[in-house]
Amino acid sequence: MLTYIAGSGAMGCRFGYQLHNKGNEVILLDMWEDHINAIKENGLNIVGDKEDNVKIEIMKPSEAERKADFIILFTKAMQLPTMLESIKPIIKEDTKVLCLLNGLGHEDVMKQYLPEKNILLGVTVWTAGLKKPGEVLLTGTGSVNLQSIDKSGKEEALEIVDMMNEAGLNVTYDEDVLPSIWRKACVNGTMNSTCALQDCTIGEFFASEEAKSVVKTIISEFVTVGKALGVKLNEEEIVDYVFKTSVAAAEHYPSMHQDLIQNHRLTEIDFINGAVARKGKELGIDTPYCQMITDLIHSKEQILGIK
Amino acid sequence: MLTYIAGSGAMGCRFGYQLHNKGNEVILLDMWEDHINAIKENGLNIVGDKEDNVKIEIMKPSEAERKADFIILFTKAMQLPTMLESIKPIIKEDTKVLCLLNGLGHEDVMKQYLPEKNILLGVTVWTAGLKKPGEVLLTGTGSVNLQSIDKSGKEEALEIVDMMNEAGLNVTYDEDVLPSIWRKACVNGTMNSTCALQDCTIGEFFASEEAKSVVKTIISEFVTVGKALGVKLNEEEIVDYVFKTSVAAAEHYPSMHQDLIQNHRLTEIDFINGAVARKGKELGIDTPYCQMITDLIHSKEQILGIK
Repeated sequence: MLTYIAGSGAMGCRFGYQLHNKGNEVILLDMWEDHINAIKENGLNIVGDKEDNVKIEIMKPSEAERKADFIILFTKAMQLPTMLESIKPIIKEDTKVLCLLNGLGHEDVMKQYLPEKNILLGVTVWTAGLKKPGEVLLTGTGSVNLQSIDKSGKEEALEIVDMMNEAGLNVTYDEDVLPSIWRKACVNGTMNSTCALQDCTIGEFFASEEAKSVVKTIISEFVTVGKALGVKLNEEEIVDYVFKTSVAAAEHYPSMHQDLIQNHRLTEIDFINGAVARKGKELGIDTPYCQMITDLIHSKEQILGIK
Repeated sequence: MLTYIAGSGAMGCRFGYQLHNKGNEVILLDMWEDHINAIKENGLNIVGDKEDNVKIEIMKPSEAERKADFIILFTKAMQLPTMLESIKPIIKEDTKVLCLLNGLGHEDVMKQYLPEKNILLGVTVWTAGLKKPGEVLLTGTGSVNLQSIDKSGKEEALEIVDMMNEAGLNVTYDEDVLPSIWRKACVNGTMNSTCALQDCTIGEFFASEEAKSVVKTIISEFVTVGKALGVKLNEEEIVDYVFKTSVAAAEHYPSMHQDLIQNHRLTEIDFINGAVARKGKELGIDTPYCQMITDLIHSKEQILGIK
């Protein structure tokens, strides 16, 4: 099964490496020249829980020619349309495409390029870090939940689940994956945007009662909009999950802090709090906290000269 | 007319200096030892539009013994109750007390210490800067609007207006000063809190469409709450005033940025956006933007280790 990883940052490299390591044919796709050249010249370097170095194919999306059996999307949210546009030539009628991006609403983009029966949506709690071009840090364990958004795609999806499980990716076929996707979006929507804005770690932000109240209000907006869209969400359970996650991740700066503050890159805010504000507007549901935090992050992008 | 300036930072020094300069007996009150000692030893130094040095009395509030005819309050908002408590012994039955603090709701505090007929509320657009202990920078011009909150106090208030006008303070007796106080609070509530949060100048914050939309929503919450309290406010006129002010002040960091980011001091947020959120809650009016921005500023105070 020829598998492409479309977007081979830290997470893409993890998935690519684990699949490749079990004998699957894997091609990494990425746009970052230094990273591509490093892997071409010296192989992909693995550090962390285990040390390894593997020869694995990597190229730019526009260079890929062989038709794909399976594609895992791991771009930044805002790069998704460009990536799908670039890889059109390698998508067959039966190429399965799994989206593991953070955030909400990616299926709307995918539907413009793929028949529904080939779209798999998923969410993962695996982590990884890019130490430098060509070197990825893999520690800890994780899991994946995924689903074919069209029931007729389930049988083929199960073959993919098997392949990924053989590679140790700990995948579950989930008959209703949307609640998990929204739950993860709640984690990101309460930690990423706030810590980027406040320039602090998750623990620092969650330390005050005022911050906890902001977090609860944001979750409440996510849940109200999600439920209106038919996603089965339990607000109390999500609040509990977010606060537990905040304790476990207290020392960390979330990825949006890394993007905005550390690296002055555009953020994924439009696909997290921004997506909820946008869907809320369509549905006539007020989401002032999501709207304001989205606007403040965009304003900060502009202040930092990124936009 | 023995006049005390209760809180002799930059603005207190300006008013104290101008009154003293016209032959009025003025005593400055302050808590900052270095500032007090500098003025005692070397006089109050004036720089800027004119250079001057005046011998003017200064002491701690607890050291003041002579009964006051007139007191101008110029503390930080959160220091007001402590100041009023300290100067109780110098307040006579007919001591007029003028509040020129930024923010909303100070009359509620003053009423605990003073009969209504002696309370003057005001707002000023004068500015000043403290260069170092004992040295104040005075540039530009300004004005004051003030009112006795009890109509029976008007005649005596007019005498004070005359005295202040002789000192060049450009004072108008205003039959309805609350709209001006709320309008200034709208300026502070859209510039101070946001620029402190975003760590930027007024011009940098106001540059994006997203920021403008945040500003308009904040003003709308101020106006809705103010109107419900009976204050005559014209939302369109205030929006216009705030945007014009933002252009004139584009290069500046507002005072809350100086407090929070530059000097790691507690902010006056509870008397600006926080006051609107609190009054809104009492009235059953939703003020999500004011509430969230108040919470984020408090959380930032905690992150910076100020609280």
